[in-house]
Amino acid sequence: MDIAIPILIVNFKTYAEATGLNALNLSSAIKRASEEIEANVAIAPQFADIYRVSSETNLPVLAQHVDAIGFGSHTGHILPESVKEAGAIGSLVNHSERKLKISEIAKIVNKLRELDMISVVCADDVEVARAVAALNPDFVAVEPPELIGTGIPVSKAKPEVVRNTVEEVKKINPEVKVLCGAGITNRDDVVKALELGTDGVLLASGLVKAKDPYSKAKELLEGLKEVCKR
Amino acid sequence: MDIAIPILIVNFKTYAEATGLNALNLSSAIKRASEEIEANVAIAPQFADIYRVSSETNLPVLAQHVDAIGFGSHTGHILPESVKEAGAIGSLVNHSERKLKISEIAKIVNKLRELDMISVVCADDVEVARAVAALNPDFVAVEPPELIGTGIPVSKAKPEVVRNTVEEVKKINPEVKVLCGAGITNRDDVVKALELGTDGVLLASGLVKAKDPYSKAKELLEGLKEVCKR
Amino acid sequence: MDIAIPILIVNFKTYAEATGLNALNLSSAIKRASEEIEANVAIAPQFADIYRVSSETNLPVLAQHVDAIGFGSHTGHILPESVKEAGAIGSLVNHSERKLKISEIAKIVNKLRELDMISVVCADDVEVARAVAALNPDFVAVEPPELIGTGIPVSKAKPEVVRNTVEEVKKINPEVKVLCGAGITNRDDVVKALELGTDGVLLASGLVKAKDPYSKAKELLEGLKEVCKR
Amino acid sequence: MDIAIPILIVNFKTYAEATGLNALNLSSAIKRASEEIEANVAIAPQFADIYRVSSETNLPVLAQHVDAIGFGSHTGHILPESVKEAGAIGSLVNHSERKLKISEIAKIVNKLRELDMISVVCADDVEVARAVAALNPDFVAVEPPELIGTGIPVSKAKPEVVRNTVEEVKKINPEVKVLCGAGITNRDDVVKALELGTDGVLLASGLVKAKDPYSKAKELLEGLKEVCKR
Repeated sequence: MDIAIPILIVNFKTYAEATGLNALNLSSAIKRASEEIEANVAIAPQFADIYRVSSETNLPVLAQHVDAIGFGSHTGHILPESVKEAGAIGSLVNHSERKLKISEIAKIVNKLRELDMISVVCADDVEVARAVAALNPDFVAVEPPELIGTGIPVSKAKPEVVRNTVEEVKKINPEVKVLCGAGITNRDDVVKALELGTDGVLLASGLVKAKDPYSKAKELLEGLKEVCKR
Repeated sequence: MDIAIPILIVNFKTYAEATGLNALNLSSAIKRASEEIEANVAIAPQFADIYRVSSETNLPVLAQHVDAIGFGSHTGHILPESVKEAGAIGSLVNHSERKLKISEIAKIVNKLRELDMISVVCADDVEVARAVAALNPDFVAVEPPELIGTGIPVSKAKPEVVRNTVEEVKKINPEVKVLCGAGITNRDDVVKALELGTDGVLLASGLVKAKDPYSKAKELLEGLKEVCKR
Repeated sequence: MDIAIPILIVNFKTYAEATGLNALNLSSAIKRASEEIEANVAIAPQFADIYRVSSETNLPVLAQHVDAIGFGSHTGHILPESVKEAGAIGSLVNHSERKLKISEIAKIVNKLRELDMISVVCADDVEVARAVAALNPDFVAVEPPELIGTGIPVSKAKPEVVRNTVEEVKKINPEVKVLCGAGITNRDDVVKALELGTDGVLLASGLVKAKDPYSKAKELLEGLKEVCKR
Repeated sequence: MDIAIPILIVNFKTYAEATGLNALNLSSAIKRASEEIEANVAIAPQFADIYRVSSETNLPVLAQHVDAIGFGSHTGHILPESVKEAGAIGSLVNHSERKLKISEIAKIVNKLRELDMISVVCADDVEVARAVAALNPDFVAVEPPELIGTGIPVSKAKPEVVRNTVEEVKKINPEVKVLCGAGITNRDDVVKALELGTDGVLLASGLVKAKDPYSKAKELLEGLKEVCKR
């Protein structure tokens, strides 16, 4: 599975605005925006919404998490094969709200690769980004947890974190792509993130909780597009 | 939400035979059997399959787990509202493969009640069954973990565990219904379980991995029906 | 093992004022106070301090936690036998900063009983207190987590929580003793807690971080003593 | 803090033979052996035994685990400062029986460094070893969990795992030292481990459960010594 960059990944978390029918409506709005702007976007809805959202919008869908398990007796866990069959093409891994043991991350990245699915492994800082890059995921997404949901964009508040992450990750494995996240809310934040060397951004409330998610998606994707054209 | 008893609850776990399209086919087979026998059944598929299975079969669907969270920033977690909107009418809680902290179980049981959803709290033994009964869930399901998946039915191997659980749970709260599980594979096991005072059984591999799940479902439901008629 | 009531249990947490040599000095101050006032006290220092504090002060010592394990391959875990041999006569269980699965609490309470050790199981609220009382520990300690460390005493801010806990726990098992904690800082708080029907209090910062822990211990123990004499 | 290599690290786990007084006796036996052979050894006893073992034997002592916390409200957790004050000069981290989240490992390694303590981070395989090496600990110890406690030495059964770990870890950071463990029980296993490029071995049952731990310690340390002399 390949995914085009630069990309905007929208994490739906468990927001009311992004649950069930709302998830469907939000996805449609994002879909329209991405078609108009012709820029790459992927969404990460809740597990129970993957099937509907993926089959009705055809957007690239990521799971928010998968467990380090295979078929078997694992009641209540998230089987990678299950989210794949529901329509997901990859998964977030180790999000700061769902942190994992290092041996689990290793297993999950390998499992996703075997299933031809994309792995987006999150990291709190440069150091953890280096460590998870050594597991050769498709993407590493650096998100300083203290900025998540604040509206203070990592690309402006901590440009050195973003720049160093890009540098250090590429030293470990130049093929791993880098995203940044936390506090991203407008076009400028996106532009700045790409200028720092990332391959895209991961965001949640900045879009999901926007008054008009369709217009906000357009604005953010225009940022993506602008840098591409240069 | 009310659910008729006695009941057979089928836990799909993360079995290959019960994932994605297989979950759908299995659900249809169970549906047909329950209509023929006119006995109560509910199924607990994986999260990503809840929407499809519930909308296409109309069987009562339980989630296999929900997290003790509400709307908000909980990437990768299972929001009760989300599985409800996908079609679930309740959830297993504290399954022996997904054990929870006691304070989480308390929160989840209350949350499910607020959402008018059924709670089926699992317990390893009589003692834990007593403890979780004090939280006033709809059902307590006792499942000695050493018998799970063995084909040695708890209702025959450890009838005293089942009988004592019924007795102790009713002492704590007579309105809590009791299920038993682990090792149930045939009609006799079901009959015996009901004779011990339970309101039904919880099973997984005994049906999911049966050669012919449709016939197996019929057989098990006939056991349920037989005791009802007496 | 039996422990006299009413009792004041001092949780050392991982406070700087209660680590290593400081733990030793603090324990000596508490020891002197308890000898002067002739009231019951127990302390819960960190694992690495149990041996020193217990052998040098002879105060009744509880561990802050033990794991649900026995002898064997459990690197990095807390073996009940190990803290016993170091001098502990019991353990806190399920403190709100170290919550446990219900099946673990059940195992730990049984294990402590087998080892003739005291179990003090913590609960956030009345409901969880009821549930853990069903496991027949020696003590249930109710501590609303939102009051911990605030200096707002549970015995004054939420007297109904304390009163109901005493009532509900005794209904489940009249032999289980009840403590309350959170926000306790002075003599009045202790008196009030006992008047509400508890067998003592569990506190931490109110004593550990007091300017003069020796005087504070005396003050709190006088509260205990006063009610006893009535 | 510096620690001489090559080294034999003995993990006491929660073995009966290495708890309380037994821990003390075992430590004395190891101490005598190391003095006779003049080879480097460190021991990792349980938390409650650190103080006694370290003050009575003067052997270098590691904790089996520490938590990613500082002074404060962390009841039941392992404060690095606490084990240091009890006499530990470092800690095992992420042992396969006590696995940690990657962000915790990062915090713990940094915290140990600040406290001038040694970090020995365990890894199940080459891949995880690479990842944790990126966090710049003092040691990475590779231990295939399927061989732990089997008596089948990793150095003979999976020499390529050991060799590749040494190679990959040094690529990430040449200053990180490498240990191997799992199944080590005799002099040859130790010699072979060092010949594969490691700086020592981590073992548990092979020594702790030996009939005569003193003689076994001598035998193993002779292996260490032999390679040094070449």
